[in-house]
Amino acid sequence: MNTGIHGGDVYNNKVNIDFSVNINPFGVPENVKKAMVEAIDSVGDYPDISQERLKKSCAKMLGVNEEYLLFGNGSSELFMTIANTLRPEKVVIPVPSFYGYEHAFKSVSEDILFYSLKEEDSYCLTKDFLSVIDESIDCIIFANPNNPTGSLIDEKLLKEILDTCKRKNIKVVLDECFIEFTNEESALRLIDEYPNLIIVRSFTKIFAIPSVRIGYMICSDKSFVNEVSEHLPEWNVSGIAEAAGYECTKCAEYVLKSREYADKEREFLLEELRKLGIRSFISSANYLLIYDKKDLYDLLLNQRILIRDCANFRGLEKGYYRIAVKSHEDNMKLIELMRKIYECN
Amino acid sequence: MNTGIHGGDVYNNKVNIDFSVNINPFGVPENVKKAMVEAIDSVGDYPDISQERLKKSCAKMLGVNEEYLLFGNGSSELFMTIANTLRPEKVVIPVPSFYGYEHAFKSVSEDILFYSLKEEDSYCLTKDFLSVIDESIDCIIFANPNNPTGSLIDEKLLKEILDTCKRKNIKVVLDECFIEFTNEESALRLIDEYPNLIIVRSFTKIFAIPSVRIGYMICSDKSFVNEVSEHLPEWNVSGIAEAAGYECTKCAEYVLKSREYADKEREFLLEELRKLGIRSFISSANYLLIYDKKDLYDLLLNQRILIRDCANFRGLEKGYYRIAVKSHEDNMKLIELMRKIYECN
Repeated sequence: MNTGIHGGDVYNNKVNIDFSVNINPFGVPENVKKAMVEAIDSVGDYPDISQERLKKSCAKMLGVNEEYLLFGNGSSELFMTIANTLRPEKVVIPVPSFYGYEHAFKSVSEDILFYSLKEEDSYCLTKDFLSVIDESIDCIIFANPNNPTGSLIDEKLLKEILDTCKRKNIKVVLDECFIEFTNEESALRLIDEYPNLIIVRSFTKIFAIPSVRIGYMICSDKSFVNEVSEHLPEWNVSGIAEAAGYECTKCAEYVLKSREYADKEREFLLEELRKLGIRSFISSANYLLIYDKKDLYDLLLNQRILIRDCANFRGLEKGYYRIAVKSHEDNMKLIELMRKIYECN
Repeated sequence: MNTGIHGGDVYNNKVNIDFSVNINPFGVPENVKKAMVEAIDSVGDYPDISQERLKKSCAKMLGVNEEYLLFGNGSSELFMTIANTLRPEKVVIPVPSFYGYEHAFKSVSEDILFYSLKEEDSYCLTKDFLSVIDESIDCIIFANPNNPTGSLIDEKLLKEILDTCKRKNIKVVLDECFIEFTNEESALRLIDEYPNLIIVRSFTKIFAIPSVRIGYMICSDKSFVNEVSEHLPEWNVSGIAEAAGYECTKCAEYVLKSREYADKEREFLLEELRKLGIRSFISSANYLLIYDKKDLYDLLLNQRILIRDCANFRGLEKGYYRIAVKSHEDNMKLIELMRKIYECN
């Protein structure tokens, strides 16, 4: 039985293909891998505490001011540190979404309001969300695209949310960990206009390096950036992660190709799953949320295929599963197995 | 000019030999290096969130209950997270000591009392320290051996401090990051008797892997351990750090040899420095605190030798420097250069 709060538990399961974590099927770019192996030769030096080289290169990649940037030991460290810095009394988290936001804020915030996204809206934020934003709220945190749904937020609505929050002095933490897989423009373009906007991104998903731990946040409110950095442990980014991150900032073409591939494969999976009669939600990311009454988690695990059981996501229930978009070969295998399951039952 | 709050800044200085960081001159053990290179092949998997393998092996090495253990992205993350968990109103830090304690507590504690260690006591804690421990204090943090002095705390006094603090409900955070270099017994033997004792240790110094980021804490108060773990980001230990840490737990002989070498070389350095007439404090660790009126930092940096200028340590002033014990060859070079400096000036 799946009891984990996260996917990717290949340590307690015998797994041949892991569809439970949403990382780029292209794997780690060669230059990134090479840089990490080389970095092991200098593990005897402390990492650069000011991350100069990485900061410069990442700022250039994003087209933002260097001083807007802060790096973390994975985006999970940044969520936790933003929470520790803000210590907001009242936080709003639209759900279903990534458990990490709750983990970060539960130890510092008295009041976490879980705003329910509706299935009939394909779990997208709608105008209704504006009506819950009042002065009592200190912080709102959500992802674009959302996880586990892959749904995007409407551009105009995002601006309305940001406007409302700016007026009411509310911080908006926007998780863009999967944005590279979509054709959506990043909210980076709004960063100067909204000092209350804190974008968190990661090299983890698009460069397939979850084990390395490197993420970053972008915010135009420099005093807030300084405040967060005061709450980060010293040398929080390992030398190996720094080397990986630096190389990642030079992989524009790889990102483009990955996006095209994810797009094509996601549509392939969606079509095949729907052919089998499985309820599958529209997604713009490299994963799909599906629903079925069959115990797909166990049925597939019997075949050493791991998918993400979403029963423990707030706002979802038994029957919801998340499937990562993997290589065409792996995706074919999954569909083949699913076909057998649906033919036999 | 040296403005850094820490040693090891080889990024802003042209350095041939770095005496400013206190890591094992033997370098990274081969098995540890090999394990890290291998771990890069699996960076596409999330690290084991429960750190089962590492926990088991480390508990065995230390001879403690697995449940007493918690791993961090370097001990710096653990200091920060202990601070975030306790949020103590009043903290006592004996100084001079490692800046990291102040960094960790300054953002959460209203009142940090810096207790001055005295030069005439060789910067050792004495009985006088007991007189400042009253009920208003929530937490005391110090290192054994201390850094930058290398001084040890008297065994009997440590027990008296722990007893007093236990009675007055005060947490004692004891940093043992350099304990492996000394012939001193770890306070681990006291861990069951004192649930208020939190020992923080690291693989960084003894295994020469500062860039990897892996440390651990040990505490017999399981509910406190759980509380701290709730304040840690998820996947805080990278897969590469986990692999390194696991191998480190199997290096007993390497530790023993390193200690013997550090001992011998420290005594060599001490003798040679004293011959030059430099005031050098007795140390039990792999570094020496010295004092001289000459601007040794700049004079040596001109020769591309980096030492730690301790002028920015609370409780010290211009003229204090810390020198790591390095390989005999490097130590000879340092002494040779120092000799020239002292002969010419």
